[in-house]
Formats: sequence, structure tokens, C-alpha cells
Amino acid sequence: MSLREHANIIIREALLQALPDSAVKSALSKADFGPGKLVLVAAGKAAWQMASAAYAALEEAGASSGKSDSADAALEAPDSLNGPVHKIDHGVVVTKYDHSQGPIGNLQIFEAGHPVPDENSFKATQAAIDAVEGLTAEDTVLFLLSGGGSALFEKPLIPGEDLTRLTQELLASGADIVEMNTIRKRFSAVKGGRFAELCAPAKVFVIVLSDILGDPLDMIASGPAYPDSTTAKDAREIVNKYHLTMTDQMNALLQVETPKDLSNVETHITGSVRQLCRTAKEKAKELGYETLVLTDQLTCAARDAGVFLSNIARYYGGENGAANGKPMAIILGGETIVRLTGHGKGGRNQELALAACEGIAGMNACVFSVGSDGTDGPTDAAGGIVDGDTLAALKAKGISVSAVLQDNDAYNALKEVDGLIMTGPTGTNVNDLTVLLLGGK
Amino acid sequence: MSLREHANIIIREALLQALPDSAVKSALSKADFGPGKLVLVAAGKAAWQMASAAYAALEEAGASSGKSDSADAALEAPDSLNGPVHKIDHGVVVTKYDHSQGPIGNLQIFEAGHPVPDENSFKATQAAIDAVEGLTAEDTVLFLLSGGGSALFEKPLIPGEDLTRLTQELLASGADIVEMNTIRKRFSAVKGGRFAELCAPAKVFVIVLSDILGDPLDMIASGPAYPDSTTAKDAREIVNKYHLTMTDQMNALLQVETPKDLSNVETHITGSVRQLCRTAKEKAKELGYETLVLTDQLTCAARDAGVFLSNIARYYGGENGAANGKPMAIILGGETIVRLTGHGKGGRNQELALAACEGIAGMNACVFSVGSDGTDGPTDAAGGIVDGDTLAALKAKGISVSAVLQDNDAYNALKEVDGLIMTGPTGTNVNDLTVLLLGGK
Repeated sequence: MSLREHANIIIREALLQALPDSAVKSALSKADFGPGKLVLVAAGKAAWQMASAAYAALEEAGASSGKSDSADAALEAPDSLNGPVHKIDHGVVVTKYDHSQGPIGNLQIFEAGHPVPDENSFKATQAAIDAVEGLTAEDTVLFLLSGGGSALFEKPLIPGEDLTRLTQELLASGADIVEMNTIRKRFSAVKGGRFAELCAPAKVFVIVLSDILGDPLDMIASGPAYPDSTTAKDAREIVNKYHLTMTDQMNALLQVETPKDLSNVETHITGSVRQLCRTAKEKAKELGYETLVLTDQLTCAARDAGVFLSNIARYYGGENGAANGKPMAIILGGETIVRLTGHGKGGRNQELALAACEGIAGMNACVFSVGSDGTDGPTDAAGGIVDGDTLAALKAKGISVSAVLQDNDAYNALKEVDGLIMTGPTGTNVNDLTVLLLGGK
Repeated sequence: MSLREHANIIIREALLQALPDSAVKSALSKADFGPGKLVLVAAGKAAWQMASAAYAALEEAGASSGKSDSADAALEAPDSLNGPVHKIDHGVVVTKYDHSQGPIGNLQIFEAGHPVPDENSFKATQAAIDAVEGLTAEDTVLFLLSGGGSALFEKPLIPGEDLTRLTQELLASGADIVEMNTIRKRFSAVKGGRFAELCAPAKVFVIVLSDILGDPLDMIASGPAYPDSTTAKDAREIVNKYHLTMTDQMNALLQVETPKDLSNVETHITGSVRQLCRTAKEKAKELGYETLVLTDQLTCAARDAGVFLSNIARYYGGENGAANGKPMAIILGGETIVRLTGHGKGGRNQELALAACEGIAGMNACVFSVGSDGTDGPTDAAGGIVDGDTLAALKAKGISVSAVLQDNDAYNALKEVDGLIMTGPTGTNVNDLTVLLLGGK
């Protein structure tokens, strides 16, 4: 198999494992729910898909368990779940407008405002609070979180006009994002671990589909099921520092502590860019490569990341390279940035790949970069792929890499040399996967 | 010891090993000269220093060998050379104007034009050709090469006006650097392996102080002692492709082949950026770090290299990092580029280090980058160093990293937070060393 064929296998497998369906199913296989009721709450841009996947997986497990004498059913559900069979008793799903794809069993489905929360966000969140009321220690809340949850899953404890004024004062004050969040959590019924507190004494089994580099659980959807690391005292100091206007009600709320210990919560992060890297690494190993993950938090300029990777290729690859002629895969995850210097068509992944083709010219090497959502920039490509022959192929067509990069026109250049990765929209968004493959001697 | 103290040890040791003196001495320790005469030829910007170091090392070896009963002498020359004692019979040194620091024994010392060769280059090169004439298979030429040799070590085979016209035609033609060199070697008495051919049947022991990434021996000083990989046929095709004007004499020279096999030559590359990385790796290991060399050919933008390194830090460092809490050193060599966006004071190494400080903020980590010549950009600093506290220290002084980078003013920002590396001019130039140190738990 060629390096490009290996690349295709790695891309396909990594994206597959990052889809909400696979991610939720894989996380559920680790679940060991209590003997009581099971309540589902899903919030975020992928809430509908996650809820639908969880519902199907639990139904399927129930069905296969109910008909365990049927060989057919067992074949259909090879990954059946552990523990006693559970059916979802009731639940609430809140996602962005136009993101619901229809009913899921008896779940209440809401669509609401994003990135700015609206009345429907508050209504949906109240429905979720109602859904977890009165649960016992035998019950479990299956809480499915994805990006966008901060706006979609919110119930303010203060009137709208106070919240609006506070937001404006914070923006004008020069407070940083950590300071802003420290304040805002205080005036929310669900953020900063408070939703998990509302669920207690029931267990909360959280599945997080992360789209933030480094998976900071207090940042994803503002951490409704994660112990808050900031204190009421911190919040009061920030209020004084920036002379923020506080009503009596707000001052009273500044005295209330957020949860610091949530022993009823078990969290599984899944489908994140870390998972993308892990799957790529496993697959590359299976294909015979030595593997090295460099980072899952790549944030530098796309074209310089491409050059950097080709610099690594020149050191490790080739006859006298540091890899000693063994096949090697260098794996990175993250989200690079595009420096806009022209008006062409492209995306960060295409630009990264194209920028690597000069450095690996003539080598038995391949660099690809792919966005997990299947759309890289404003194009129909998911990313770009180049190898040791790409530069020569571009030159033969009279295309200059530096001119193309200057014009941000990677799409049209890569299209000419079979350098576009096309997957179509994947239904997930957990950042990008970038890989350098060095073929052996 | 702190990470910064470790950094200082690594910097000192790596630079020391890269100095012409250490580099030449270490390469000479591998020399096994023939029983005949020893002739020295040195060309390049570091020619004087290399010649002086070789002369001293050989004198010292002779002295210590002569007085082997003296404990003092043995102490002074612990690294004495192998094989029979050799003294330099005669020799020629050619370096850039103002780069000679005085006489060395009986060696003929020339200063000449760089980057454009002049009459003194031709005169000096003729002297070198004369110096190696009539040698036998028992004799050895010690040939010391450093950057700048292409201009300083040259004797054209065609009249100056023909050479000037050829150069102009080549520049106007759009020929690439490989094509240009393929042609130019044909009209030189010493390039493309021809000097080594003139030395035959004597042995040629070459010590190369490399300042070109990847150490391409045919590129350093245009490879006077390296078999030429291009053929006379290649050259004739380029002449036809670009319709270059050839005199009868030039056409005749286009029929003459360059050396393809130089069995009398033994080459040692030393003091290169590869050596910098190797020394840094060894030293970091001694200090208890796991080590990983990523590349010795880093060429991307300085600030993005810094961000990239901090992205790696966030993945490997910290309590749950991939290094599992073990101290780790990530090592890179090369020469990044500065994107000029402002009018401040700085250099590529300072910019790289400063750009890394946001990503490693709060971590037990340190990033430094240092130019081996001791002067980074138009400043008196050799490079920059940052750690997990640097960002907070800058903030406390009201300094914004992004604003400083935008203004290319890393020098003044780093100066405020003990972030400049000061070594003074080192007398060598083998690119830059960049290291990320991650402290353990």
C-alpha cells in the first residue's frame, strides 16, 4: 500500500471514531447505571445527535437482552452495554435552531439561541431542571454535553436587564475571559457545577463531546457538572476591581458558594481531538509505523505548521534520517490559524498541507491535515494531502507554492495535484488531525 | 537547580562545542595523517580561527609528545592527537576582509572579497593550488572549510567579462540555484570537487564547519572537495534551455567532466547545527531529562515556532501530560525567519522565545532559543529565554505579548523580565539552538 492509501485508512478511521454516534456508544459501554430511573439531558450543538445515539444504543441493548435467544439480534448488537438493561424514563434535549432532526422517543426537544441565549434557552433549561427534580440516589442522569452549551443551557438567577448591563460593564472593563466567567457563574442556576448539584443525590453520568483544545471541563458549556475552581471571594474581588454595578439581589448571590466537590458525577470525555489523535496513532501502529504524538493543542499559523512538519520530516526521514529508515508517523491535533494575505479559496488544513510540500519534495513522505467536520474553510474539501511528488507536479503545471500561499488559494492548487481530501460534512466538530507519514527504506 | 540554571548549562556547553577551536580539535582527534608532508589550506569566514586552532592543536600534540616525561605538559594536552606527530609544512589561509587576526606560523594569509569574489580571492586560491602541487600519496592536505568559501575560494577558468555576462544571463533567465551552480562549476578550477582532484594523489582530510541546514557538502563553498553530482551533459542542457551565450573556450570547458569519485578525500562535518543539537541532547540527558530532537532544519516563522513549541509543552507537560511527569527536553536546531510587521528591536531567537511564553504560562517549563554567533538580529543579545512565570511578569509591567510581537520588539520586552541571553560574539555561526525544558512533578 502507498503512503496515500495508509493516509486514507487513518483519516477514515479517526473521523469515524470521532462521530457523535461512535463517541456516545463507546462512552456508554463504560456506564454502570444505578438500579433506579434513567433521565437523559442533552445540551449543545450536537445534543440531538448525541441523544439519538444514546437512545438507540440503550434501546438496542434492551432489545438484544430481551431476545437473547435470537442469533440475529446478537449479531446486530455486538457491542451491547454492560450492567442491567436500562431504558430512558424521560428527558430533555436542547440544541441550536434547525439542529433537531425529529422526535426521539418521549424526549422533550427544544431549539434555542446560539451564541446568544434567548427565552427558549431559559425555557429548555428550566425543563431540564424539572426533569431531574426529586430523583433518588438509585437514579441516574445521563448528561450529554457538546459545544455551544454555554448559551443553550442557561437559566439566569437575575433579571435580563441586570444580566445585559453586567455583560456590557464586563466587556468595557478589560476583564479577561477567566474573570468574566468567574462572575457570570454566580448568577446562573446551572453553570459552575450547579446543574449536577440539582441532580443530587442522583448519579450524573456525563459524556462530553469536546471541541475545546485541551478539554478544559470547566470551560465546556461553562461546566454545569464540573466543580467550580473559583470562589465567592474571587468573584467579589473582581466586582471591586472593575467597580461593577451590583443590585441587592446580585450582592446576595455573590455570597453563595458554587459546588467544590461533586462526588455524584462521573465524566467521560469523548470524540475530542485527543481521541482523533489516539485513533490515528493506533491505526498508524497497526499499519507498521513507529508513532509520535507531538501535541493535541496545535494553534500556530497553518502554513508555518506545515513548514515545521516538513522540517521534522527532513530530520527523521531519508536514508540517513533519525528514524533509521523505519516507517514513522508524527501525529498532531488542534486548530491552526490562517493568515489572510490574499483572496483565494482554501482552509487552514489545505494551507498547512500545501506549505509542507516543498520541504518533503523528493522524499518518501506524506503530510495530510483534515478538519473533523469535513469542511475546511469555505470549501467543500475536508483538508489537504501532499507527498514527495507534489511539488514537482505543481511545478509541471506552472504553479508556485509561495504565490498560492500568498493568495490563500490552496484549494485550487491542491485540486490540480490530487491533493484535496473530500469526506462531505461528518456531523461532528472536534478540531483537526494533522499527520506526517515517513515511509521506510 | 532551576530550569533556567539547566538552560544556562545546556547553552554554555552547546556553544562551546560549536566554536571553531573545539570543533577543529575534536575533528583532528579522528585524523590519521600519512607519513609524508602536511599542507594546510583553509577557506571561509572562519578560516583564520580554524587554521589557528589546527595549528595550535598540532603544535601542542608535538610539544606534549616531545616532552612526554613532563606531567605538566600532559595535563595541558589531555586530548592529544592520534598517530605520528605532525607539523604543518606550509599552507594558505583565505578569509574575508578584516577577519585575519595576525600571522599563524609560516602560513600565507590572504583576505579577499565576500560575498562577491575579487582579485584577491583568485590570487589566494592560486596560492592554494600552488601549495598542493607536486604532492605524493604519502602527503596530506588538511583542508578547513567554512561558510563564505564559495566567494573566497575561487579561480575562474574563463575571463572576468565572460563570467560577469554569464552571471547576468543566468539571473535574467529564471534558472534556479541548482541550475546556476551546475553551470558555474564548469568554469571554475576548484569547485565541484576539482580542488581535491588537484591535491591527488595526496590524501585530503576535510574539516567542514557547516552553516547550511542539512549540511549539504556540495553546497558548502560549492564543494571543492566533494564529488560533483551533476554531469557535463546536464550543464549543456541548461545552456540550451536558457539560450546562454557561450564562447569557444566555454564550449570546450562544457565538454570536461567534474570528478565523480574522490577516493583520496575524507570529510568530517563539525560544529554544525547538528552538533549543537547533539551536545544539547547529551547535556540534557546528563541533567536527568528524557530527550527528543525534533529537527536540525527548522525554517518556519520564528513566532509560530514558539507557539508550536508551547503547544507541544501543553501536551507533554503538566500533571496529566504525556511525559507522565518526567522531566523532558525537546530540542530543535535551525534558523527561523522573522516576519517584519513593526519597527522594534529584536531577533528571530528572541521572538521565538517570547511567542512561547503565553502557551507555557503557569507551567513548570522553560523555552529558550539562542543564535550560535552570539548576536540575534541587530541586538547585543544572543537569544531569549522564557518560563512559566514570564507571562505574569510581563502583564505586571503592562506589556502585551501580541503587541510586542506585532512591533517586532521582543528585545525590550524580554529585557524587562530577565529574558535575554547574553553571550557576546562567539566567533562561530552554525545557526540556532532552540530547547523546551519541561520540569518533572
